[in-house]
Amino acid sequence: MERLVLHEYSASGNCYKVRLTAALLGLPIERREYDILKGETRTPEFLAAVNANGRIPVLQVGERFIPESNAACFYLADGSALVPEDRFERADMLRWMFFEQYNHEPNVATMRFWIAFVGEARLSEAQRGQIEAKRAAGEAALALMDEHLAARPWFVGARLSLADIALYAYTHVADEGGFDLARYPAVSAWLGRVAAAPGYVAMG
Amino acid sequence: MERLVLHEYSASGNCYKVRLTAALLGLPIERREYDILKGETRTPEFLAAVNANGRIPVLQVGERFIPESNAACFYLADGSALVPEDRFERADMLRWMFFEQYNHEPNVATMRFWIAFVGEARLSEAQRGQIEAKRAAGEAALALMDEHLAARPWFVGARLSLADIALYAYTHVADEGGFDLARYPAVSAWLGRVAAAPGYVAMG
Repeated sequence: MERLVLHEYSASGNCYKVRLTAALLGLPIERREYDILKGETRTPEFLAAVNANGRIPVLQVGERFIPESNAACFYLADGSALVPEDRFERADMLRWMFFEQYNHEPNVATMRFWIAFVGEARLSEAQRGQIEAKRAAGEAALALMDEHLAARPWFVGARLSLADIALYAYTHVADEGGFDLARYPAVSAWLGRVAAAPGYVAMG
Repeated sequence: MERLVLHEYSASGNCYKVRLTAALLGLPIERREYDILKGETRTPEFLAAVNANGRIPVLQVGERFIPESNAACFYLADGSALVPEDRFERADMLRWMFFEQYNHEPNVATMRFWIAFVGEARLSEAQRGQIEAKRAAGEAALALMDEHLAARPWFVGARLSLADIALYAYTHVADEGGFDLARYPAVSAWLGRVAAAPGYVAMG
């Protein structure tokens, strides 16, 4: 594989997904840190060379760039045991990855960012007006995961896949956004299984 | 392929993506309509049998179900010319599909739903407080697409892929949410190319 560079902010769960995928696959990956709180991913240089969308993570593969955390994970894991061989299971894995970006991350991750990184006192009026809805939607996402995991060890099929990695990243630090994981016992047990995977690395 | 049933609300762009993918592939697909404005996807029966997340579209494959529009499209198109064979391009296609669900749909589609379906007068205070930000984020997504398409005919590689289908669905009706597509000439030209694809079907 070509040289891999992860353009990241290491406290970001989205960035951690890519690093965890590389670690579980045993792929060496260089890391380049940007401080998103200082706008380092909105500079003209970053927008022109790395990602016109001004966001991290971006996976650099040689001289090419893949934004969007779950797409970067897919690039790394394509053809590996982290992507199911079965057609239905492969689509079902993507189903959970899209669920993660649509129902989970904008609530569970955003609550963590607002509370633990920005600080509630510094939120705008419009942001404060969304807290109640985001907390409810985050709890709903965690409840749905808990119900699904009550009957099976992994999100899809008989082994860990990218669906687990994508959902693990922000779930395992959901307490930082005010979510109580003790309410979700199947999720808590699954977090332990992911953390026990050979090659696992912690966030940060 | 097993029997395919699309559980849908036919005015939804997310549902249209799945139907358009099936049409471009020449796959017959049955349609089952639910009125989301009447809560027909939140009934105990729907939650138990079709999608615990209470959302459409859901693609039924035999007796199994795939929620999430882009995952359903991937299931249908896996192994076809709508998914690039090249590893980088395949991940790049998913990059645009995740961009669609994170940066485009929550803004461009939600504005359409709020203005054309719910009606501005019936929005909650919290929703009204988000309109300005959603309009700006929707314009930013369209501007990013326009910049990308100014230099190439399709989002990824040399032909139409699921990335184009995913982004076409809500872009071609963005005017219903108050977005002026005349400001995005490369997007407008690309909309015409998608609509000219053999097998194309209109929304509805």
